[in-house]
Amino acid sequence: MTRIDEGVDAGTLVQIHQLYGLQSHLIDDGSARAWAETFTPDGEFCSPTYPAPVTGHDDLEAFAERFRAGAHAAGEVHRHVVTNVAVEPAGDDTLRVRAYLQIVATARGGESRLVRFTTLDDLVVRHDGAWRIARRSVTRDDA
Amino acid sequence: MTRIDEGVDAGTLVQIHQLYGLQSHLIDDGSARAWAETFTPDGEFCSPTYPAPVTGHDDLEAFAERFRAGAHAAGEVHRHVVTNVAVEPAGDDTLRVRAYLQIVATARGGESRLVRFTTLDDLVVRHDGAWRIARRSVTRDDA
Amino acid sequence: MTRIDEGVDAGTLVQIHQLYGLQSHLIDDGSARAWAETFTPDGEFCSPTYPAPVTGHDDLEAFAERFRAGAHAAGEVHRHVVTNVAVEPAGDDTLRVRAYLQIVATARGGESRLVRFTTLDDLVVRHDGAWRIARRSVTRDDA
Repeated sequence: MTRIDEGVDAGTLVQIHQLYGLQSHLIDDGSARAWAETFTPDGEFCSPTYPAPVTGHDDLEAFAERFRAGAHAAGEVHRHVVTNVAVEPAGDDTLRVRAYLQIVATARGGESRLVRFTTLDDLVVRHDGAWRIARRSVTRDDA
Repeated sequence: MTRIDEGVDAGTLVQIHQLYGLQSHLIDDGSARAWAETFTPDGEFCSPTYPAPVTGHDDLEAFAERFRAGAHAAGEVHRHVVTNVAVEPAGDDTLRVRAYLQIVATARGGESRLVRFTTLDDLVVRHDGAWRIARRSVTRDDA
Repeated sequence: MTRIDEGVDAGTLVQIHQLYGLQSHLIDDGSARAWAETFTPDGEFCSPTYPAPVTGHDDLEAFAERFRAGAHAAGEVHRHVVTNVAVEPAGDDTLRVRAYLQIVATARGGESRLVRFTTLDDLVVRHDGAWRIARRSVTRDDA
């Protein structure tokens, strides 16, 4: 059971939970720049939904804005629901963080539905004294 | 990124996660008074689903009992699923806590369905040495 | 409100969150033995879905393998989504941990759906210096 009990200290675990708890609110409520800045300045977002990785704060911000614009154009609210955050050490000041991410869409005046079930597999590093995502790899269960 | 890194200490973050983890079990398993007491004595619950705020332990308890009675009358079990807890400082011994709250209903012998997707935006304060909800504002994605 | 404020220290709470965050990844990604070892050596898994308790690492491992084989045979990916982790003291080095557990299935190339909503009610103990599940009782909302 080394995978559970290898040493990640309690303070770090709590900061990671806080990072993942907050991150979805940022992209979902339109704080696109703040969402981008949960990544390192050269952070990468890799998803099979998109043809190429999105890299760096400016492109990540634009990506977040497109996500929200797409939902708005569809007359829906889209949410990123994060659960099952699991943290493993991956080197000096480096963590592997996995989590489930569900996209839930709600039409104005209509019903909510689970659009997509994905798994995040992130490399998280210390940057300027805070934990930031250096690389996010997303896999989709329907792919 | 001040929104993530402003100082909420690890011990407080863990207590808040515990409060939000437990709170739903209380309303869902019929511990209506204990659920009410996760609020301050003059705590307020404001939701567009209900015409006026629900205020104070007695009214909150009655509210929780009505929630459960409604589910029971429908022959269903209703659950409050809380995710994406994010904590920000909001003054001395005062926090802003946001979270997603999904209502999931299951008919006896039937299927489960996502009834409603909401966001909690809470003011949480220290009361008698414990964190309690002073004001909860609920927004619905379908509204 | 003793149920919230009784003393479970912050370090323990964080370890429990880590245990529950990681556990689902283990069964879902095929790490059947590692999943089994989140239980004590004589740990018990009791669910109305199965006729008898599953007991001990070998049987738990086989159980986890059957779960994954069943999903695979159905051409689906099945996920264990854990939320609302709530920890209460239950004696010396013993905790009661409750959580919601949703099973979400996704067909390859198809849609995701909520298959089952359950509640975990676990007895968790210290074993060889780590928190392990001594007995898991699962209830289903459709039962």
